[in-house]
Amino acid sequence: MPLTLEQLNAASALEAAAWLGGLYEPSPWVIEGALARRPFLSLAHLKYVMADIVRHAGRDRQLALVRAQPELAGQAMVGNTQTPESGHEPDQAGLTQCTAAELAKIQRLNADYNAKFGFPLVLAAPGPTGLGLTRSEIIATFERRLDNPADFELLECLRNIDRIAEIRLNDKLGVTPELGNQVWDWAQRLATHSEAAYADRGELTVTYLSDAHRAVAQRLAHWMRADCGFDEVEIDAVGNVVGIYHGSTRDAKRLLTGSHYDTVRNGGKYDGRLGILMPMVCVRELHRQGRRLPYGIEVVGFAEEEGQRYRAVFLGSGALTGHFNADWLAQQDADGVTMREAMTRAGLCVDDIPKLRRDASKYLGFVETHIEQGPVLNEIDLPLGIVTSINGSVRYIGSIIGMASHAGTTPMGSRRDAATAAAELTLYAERRGSSVPNVVATVGMLEVPSGSINVVPGRCNFSLDIRATSDDLRDSCATDVCAELVRICERRGLHFKLEETMRVAAAPSAPAWQRRWEQAVHALGLPIHRMPSGAGHDAMKLHELMPQAMLFVRGQNAGISHNPLESVTNDDMQLAADALSNLLLQLATELQQASISPAPD
Amino acid sequence: MPLTLEQLNAASALEAAAWLGGLYEPSPWVIEGALARRPFLSLAHLKYVMADIVRHAGRDRQLALVRAQPELAGQAMVGNTQTPESGHEPDQAGLTQCTAAELAKIQRLNADYNAKFGFPLVLAAPGPTGLGLTRSEIIATFERRLDNPADFELLECLRNIDRIAEIRLNDKLGVTPELGNQVWDWAQRLATHSEAAYADRGELTVTYLSDAHRAVAQRLAHWMRADCGFDEVEIDAVGNVVGIYHGSTRDAKRLLTGSHYDTVRNGGKYDGRLGILMPMVCVRELHRQGRRLPYGIEVVGFAEEEGQRYRAVFLGSGALTGHFNADWLAQQDADGVTMREAMTRAGLCVDDIPKLRRDASKYLGFVETHIEQGPVLNEIDLPLGIVTSINGSVRYIGSIIGMASHAGTTPMGSRRDAATAAAELTLYAERRGSSVPNVVATVGMLEVPSGSINVVPGRCNFSLDIRATSDDLRDSCATDVCAELVRICERRGLHFKLEETMRVAAAPSAPAWQRRWEQAVHALGLPIHRMPSGAGHDAMKLHELMPQAMLFVRGQNAGISHNPLESVTNDDMQLAADALSNLLLQLATELQQASISPAPD
Repeated sequence: MPLTLEQLNAASALEAAAWLGGLYEPSPWVIEGALARRPFLSLAHLKYVMADIVRHAGRDRQLALVRAQPELAGQAMVGNTQTPESGHEPDQAGLTQCTAAELAKIQRLNADYNAKFGFPLVLAAPGPTGLGLTRSEIIATFERRLDNPADFELLECLRNIDRIAEIRLNDKLGVTPELGNQVWDWAQRLATHSEAAYADRGELTVTYLSDAHRAVAQRLAHWMRADCGFDEVEIDAVGNVVGIYHGSTRDAKRLLTGSHYDTVRNGGKYDGRLGILMPMVCVRELHRQGRRLPYGIEVVGFAEEEGQRYRAVFLGSGALTGHFNADWLAQQDADGVTMREAMTRAGLCVDDIPKLRRDASKYLGFVETHIEQGPVLNEIDLPLGIVTSINGSVRYIGSIIGMASHAGTTPMGSRRDAATAAAELTLYAERRGSSVPNVVATVGMLEVPSGSINVVPGRCNFSLDIRATSDDLRDSCATDVCAELVRICERRGLHFKLEETMRVAAAPSAPAWQRRWEQAVHALGLPIHRMPSGAGHDAMKLHELMPQAMLFVRGQNAGISHNPLESVTNDDMQLAADALSNLLLQLATELQQASISPAPD
Repeated sequence: MPLTLEQLNAASALEAAAWLGGLYEPSPWVIEGALARRPFLSLAHLKYVMADIVRHAGRDRQLALVRAQPELAGQAMVGNTQTPESGHEPDQAGLTQCTAAELAKIQRLNADYNAKFGFPLVLAAPGPTGLGLTRSEIIATFERRLDNPADFELLECLRNIDRIAEIRLNDKLGVTPELGNQVWDWAQRLATHSEAAYADRGELTVTYLSDAHRAVAQRLAHWMRADCGFDEVEIDAVGNVVGIYHGSTRDAKRLLTGSHYDTVRNGGKYDGRLGILMPMVCVRELHRQGRRLPYGIEVVGFAEEEGQRYRAVFLGSGALTGHFNADWLAQQDADGVTMREAMTRAGLCVDDIPKLRRDASKYLGFVETHIEQGPVLNEIDLPLGIVTSINGSVRYIGSIIGMASHAGTTPMGSRRDAATAAAELTLYAERRGSSVPNVVATVGMLEVPSGSINVVPGRCNFSLDIRATSDDLRDSCATDVCAELVRICERRGLHFKLEETMRVAAAPSAPAWQRRWEQAVHALGLPIHRMPSGAGHDAMKLHELMPQAMLFVRGQNAGISHNPLESVTNDDMQLAADALSNLLLQLATELQQASISPAPD
């Protein structure tokens, strides 16, 4: 019979340790440490405390913990054998089915990995417990992680150990993350639709109005209508999937929420889509309970955010804010198909796009749930983060021009080296970005074109990307970096070209809405972590029309995104759905307390 | 009637200034300053003093001097109209023959140039005075110089003004650089032979045993025999052109001298060849005077130094030192032709290569004249430089591996940025190279492969080239740079790969032979400038067998080499021939003074 959290909090240390024994098998200090921090506010809190203890245990204990793990073959089975009650198909692709060649490869990788790091690879299943990794995924993960820095890889193993403990703990407590599993399943099913050329390579690519894109829209609309109980569902004139779950009255103000369902080329399954599926699963629960809130919920799956097929971006959310530019309709994709042609072929009523503009007075605000797409939550073992601002950004492409000359015959003092100048700029950008919290500055492209080993570089091309929580912080950093470029070139007798290629304003979260997310996460027993969003999101567009705030969900694999390795666990999805449910209910309470449906902001 | 240097030294300042008026037309301060530094030891000394005054005049006077020059069309005519007595064809290609399109292009370039620099382009003919630049060369020079840093370009204009003054001064004194013109003519005629594909594009490419290469050998051998009076001439088993001018007895010891006649792809006309043509013109003079020295002169045109057709290098000089490796014969060129096949087709007796090894006891030493291939002499207005050592070198190819991540979402403190690490290394190499005289360190290749504007670089590839006058200096620099790479990667949590791809020992000049070059240059009235050779030369190979020392000749265009812009003036060639003649006569005197033909070293 499963244990309860109350029993665990009330039990003696010895009793509790016995119950939890086996989570971190050969290292009882994890459980001992965790129990000293009772009472546990929630299952999530207990998991966080254990991970926190592992993370601060010191290198010796951490190494011992990792070294005590079984070699890969045993690890990979965790995904196959735990919780058979989850109802999912057992993994047909585990290591038990390996070909001889695959096995030989894994054994070689295993030997290399042990030789490099001095501990075995620890690898937990990322999704619902019944679905492990395919053999090719295991091999790819092995190859990728073999290239990690040693200190990072140790932490990655510890995180995988935490994940294995989480799966074991769910099992002990008889907990299944039902909402998380639902969202995970939906996300996997949406990912079966990919543009043909990419699908053939097993890659996910869904760009604006491709067949795969329209299939995803069709599925979303169907699930909203048939499975979730939305009152009104339609695919609008720009391709957005819009579902409305009315409040207690049909004309009640609405909460707007959602995210995009298009993807980058060879992208991940969760970027954007989590923000559509989360409110869908919450509405499904409300509908199952026959419950109406004092406000309506309008969920939008935005048709386009990534700017992959056409140069224009935010086509979906831009239509809602009245910023869809009719000039864009003439843009052509790589095959020469104009946006207007693509929309007409898809049966979209292009002329109705202007009508999509929302009347802000009919909305309470906009919230968006999104995968973090960064390493922060993963690093600090927190499943959820509160966004304080979507960063403003500015981008440049530049060249420093010096004089190419013979590397042997040109004395150091006679050089006009474009690469050393670019190196100075790169380090200055790093220093300047690091000197102020919530500013990042990146030289992502750096190249001596046609460089030769024996030629002093006459030219060096570079890019510069600066982002900050406010436009002022961003501009002050950009001004400093550009001034430094001038100084470097003057001092070295070089010249440069610099072109600004993008500038986007920051979108700080509306304080009241940010506070609602904080309360919703706090209610889960989790610490509040506030953070800026370095990437752009649909909420940036809605920001122009109404108050907005975002919730971030931890990404696995150091938060990698725009990449097939993008991953979120079902347990974290469950917590995100719980947080959104908390926010919805809390907002209902606020509105009821304010009696006569005022704007709560 | 032309003036003499003696008259100039003896004249009153007023008289002398009147004679020299017009050399630096609107700037009498140049002549005034020069006259204050009388007596002039030689014409070369006078030219050096004038250039030195211009170089140290301060920016205001320099700008005024350049601004007073006529616009390009007038400048370009200098090459066409001066010294019609030189006997060369007048240039058919000057600006007078421009098409309308060419003229429009030159006018646009002229406007851009004036707008950028605030002074007109000054452009003097590089070669014998009767041969100017072609229209396409003028346009290419304009385009190239438009890209120069402003301070550098001002100096380049001043150097061109000095060159125009030199041509005018030769005219006033009735001096024609006969030996320089002869070498210049030979070099132009050799440059008519280029491999077909390159010749069609007007480029010079002469790789080992191509038709062009064999034609050059044939010409050299013919000139040695028919024009210069060598006693024995042959093309040896490896393709070297060897000419012997006996001493007073046929068994007298010999001075070995020469350089290579192959070129890089799309290379220059003087790299290597100057070192063959200089002793040829000196022997021609001895022969014309019917003069024999107490030692023989053996001039070798080395068949191969550049390593263009096959991976092996120094095939020619290596054969003389017994380092021709028979394994190389199996190497294939890009078309699959083995070295042995190429040699057999050319009628070379491959089996006789081992017999080419020279017996050091029969030689006094080896001297080589070479274009500097660097900017130093051009910067300090000196036509000749004395080589102290051919630098030792070491080369590496490396990669720094970090972790690619999102440039917006990865905080500065969580990055594993491979490019900032490479930037640190690049700047360290520059600092370390600069901290010790006669050491150079270069990162010539630098690239974030597939870098994106919004991705923190996960990898950065680089090259490293370190050279120094001694192996100790080189190794100490390389050790420090490699240790810094380790430190940078440790501090930043990155790893790296580093492969040493080349290591060559330094070849310091034999002191006695270096001293002979110094005396030979001193006798021309020129200051002595000692400098290392950053590039490798045939003398490096001969170094293994006998004492050696080299003389460098100033290159125009900032000393650019391995490039069609490589250039040497006829006046500088004359000085190099004079210096070599001085060395030959001085060596004769030394041997005579030591009476019974001892080894002078």
